[in-house]
Amino acid sequence: MNTISFARGVPAAELLAVEQLADCAKTAIERDGASVLLYGHTLGYQPLREWIGERHGVDPGRVVVTNGSLQAFHFVLSAFAGAGRVIVERPTYDRPRSILSGFDEVPVDDDGLELDELERLLDSVEPPAFLYTIPTFQNPTGVTLSEERRRDLAELAKIRSLRILEDDPYGLVRFEGDVLPTLFELEGGRNVMYSSSFSKTIAPGLRVGYVILPEAIAAGLEDVVASTYITPALVTQATVLEFLRRGLLEPNLERVRALLRARRDAMLEALERELGGRAGWSRPEGGYFLWLELPDGIDATELLGRATEAGVTFVPGPDFGGEPGSARLAFSFASPAEIDEGVSRLAGLVPAAATVELG
Amino acid sequence: MNTISFARGVPAAELLAVEQLADCAKTAIERDGASVLLYGHTLGYQPLREWIGERHGVDPGRVVVTNGSLQAFHFVLSAFAGAGRVIVERPTYDRPRSILSGFDEVPVDDDGLELDELERLLDSVEPPAFLYTIPTFQNPTGVTLSEERRRDLAELAKIRSLRILEDDPYGLVRFEGDVLPTLFELEGGRNVMYSSSFSKTIAPGLRVGYVILPEAIAAGLEDVVASTYITPALVTQATVLEFLRRGLLEPNLERVRALLRARRDAMLEALERELGGRAGWSRPEGGYFLWLELPDGIDATELLGRATEAGVTFVPGPDFGGEPGSARLAFSFASPAEIDEGVSRLAGLVPAAATVELG
Repeated sequence: MNTISFARGVPAAELLAVEQLADCAKTAIERDGASVLLYGHTLGYQPLREWIGERHGVDPGRVVVTNGSLQAFHFVLSAFAGAGRVIVERPTYDRPRSILSGFDEVPVDDDGLELDELERLLDSVEPPAFLYTIPTFQNPTGVTLSEERRRDLAELAKIRSLRILEDDPYGLVRFEGDVLPTLFELEGGRNVMYSSSFSKTIAPGLRVGYVILPEAIAAGLEDVVASTYITPALVTQATVLEFLRRGLLEPNLERVRALLRARRDAMLEALERELGGRAGWSRPEGGYFLWLELPDGIDATELLGRATEAGVTFVPGPDFGGEPGSARLAFSFASPAEIDEGVSRLAGLVPAAATVELG
Repeated sequence: MNTISFARGVPAAELLAVEQLADCAKTAIERDGASVLLYGHTLGYQPLREWIGERHGVDPGRVVVTNGSLQAFHFVLSAFAGAGRVIVERPTYDRPRSILSGFDEVPVDDDGLELDELERLLDSVEPPAFLYTIPTFQNPTGVTLSEERRRDLAELAKIRSLRILEDDPYGLVRFEGDVLPTLFELEGGRNVMYSSSFSKTIAPGLRVGYVILPEAIAAGLEDVVASTYITPALVTQATVLEFLRRGLLEPNLERVRALLRARRDAMLEALERELGGRAGWSRPEGGYFLWLELPDGIDATELLGRATEAGVTFVPGPDFGGEPGSARLAFSFASPAEIDEGVSRLAGLVPAAATVELG
């Protein structure tokens, strides 16, 4: 029996534009080898910085292109070392939780970050280094910050001079509902820093992520970045740029969205059929993940042990700072048929009598 | 007037196998896209780890492939955090000097690291985390550790359980003299860790470096590496592997060596003509750099200001921990004709009466 993975927050191989990327890499090296095969600008391949700057309406000097956006998170941290603690969402992406030596948390509900709780926290702690938030199709919950809250949070950033790092790797992977403005757009990019990546829109193995910072902070990072890896991998950055310049991003996104929508639908249908009325789950309009709240008394970490034996895996909520009875299910990797089977296997391990207290 | 750079420790564009690399990238993505375009092993692209392991006669589990070897230096540092200070050579590569918060130094002479001084230091300090050394065509001096000292240092590593990080990016770029055994080979890789890169043998813009560690230390790095960038850039690692598998490394090295030898020769001849008997310099048998000792009383940092105006640049010795009157001249980047002209410009700034005390 093959194990079905709801654990891996990765795209399936069939989502990859392999032939197109192979050709883009070839062209990028052939045409620009003299620059992309040597050391280049520490803050990234200049023409890609320019493309990203234009897309977001900012000077390219504010754009730092890195070997994946997690590396950008480290650089932002180094820029604000000693500037206070970081505030994160609860639950949130597990990597920042493990990277940060200490942090404060603000809970997330179905409309995203709870702003009342954020304000209460801000009133009670020293000024934070920044707030780290994933407002759109959040990892791990799949939840999206509502438009009203976005406007309020952008306003709050201005009024309180609250720095925010808006992490937005999934924003373009929306397959339903209206596109919402980013915090970066609403606030104008003074207090809001914006990070994203091409991992979910093109391919993660290219390791091309970026962050948009105030210009002085970006320039101030040059030493840190140079002392970390001299220059990021320019060949892959040039490959991404070639893909973008050929206009391949939008058709690729359409394909990715259609595939992910089918997978999300398969997961929602299977959950309804197998656990309807007994468990709760988020209904993301994009991204890779949904959040499962197991029936009362069921511990996700304990369940994972039995689930693995039964041939299905997921990540328990506590890994993200979530409740013991919660879990992250990724619908990005398994096929719709596998998702259907995987949810059946999982539900088979949840006693029929168990129900969740739905709030 | 174009500025001639003896500052840039980079290969010239004409040293790059652009067409071959373009084709290797295309093939690597086309054939292995399903793995190299996704996340992979945190410690590097597995088939490349295997290739490197085989080349060095070690288990691939000991090989950590990174986005350039400077990133590997950070990982090694993190593995030995709290284990004592690092010992470096004086002078040495400037990046480690700026990365390390504190270090002890052992001088280098024409035969490399002075072992008597090393032993004296070891007797007087707490056990170090490790000794960082570039035994072959050292950056910045171009000096190579003699075979006798290699054997003695390998022995000393065993006897004293002295950990060594042998950084060897230039070893394969030898264009004269006999190949010497690495410390890693002589000692058997128990106390000696070995790092290298494909930056000088294929192309730096690929950002593929590696380090060979004791297996437990390599495995222990998985969390740190995953929390830094999840997976290194796999596409470029697969491109390097394709280049290696096609047998392109050796012909490429032959080409690179021939070009670099001509450049070194041009620099040695011009120095002899322009500064013979007045200044001193190393005569490297490979690599990118030679070390210049200016006539007495001439300060390299001050000279650089005037040299830049006169259209030639270099890096003053003090940047590497060297004497005020020393300088690193890179012969890798400029053409032989430019080198000839650049040395003339430089010598024109050195008063004819000035001589160096040659030791």
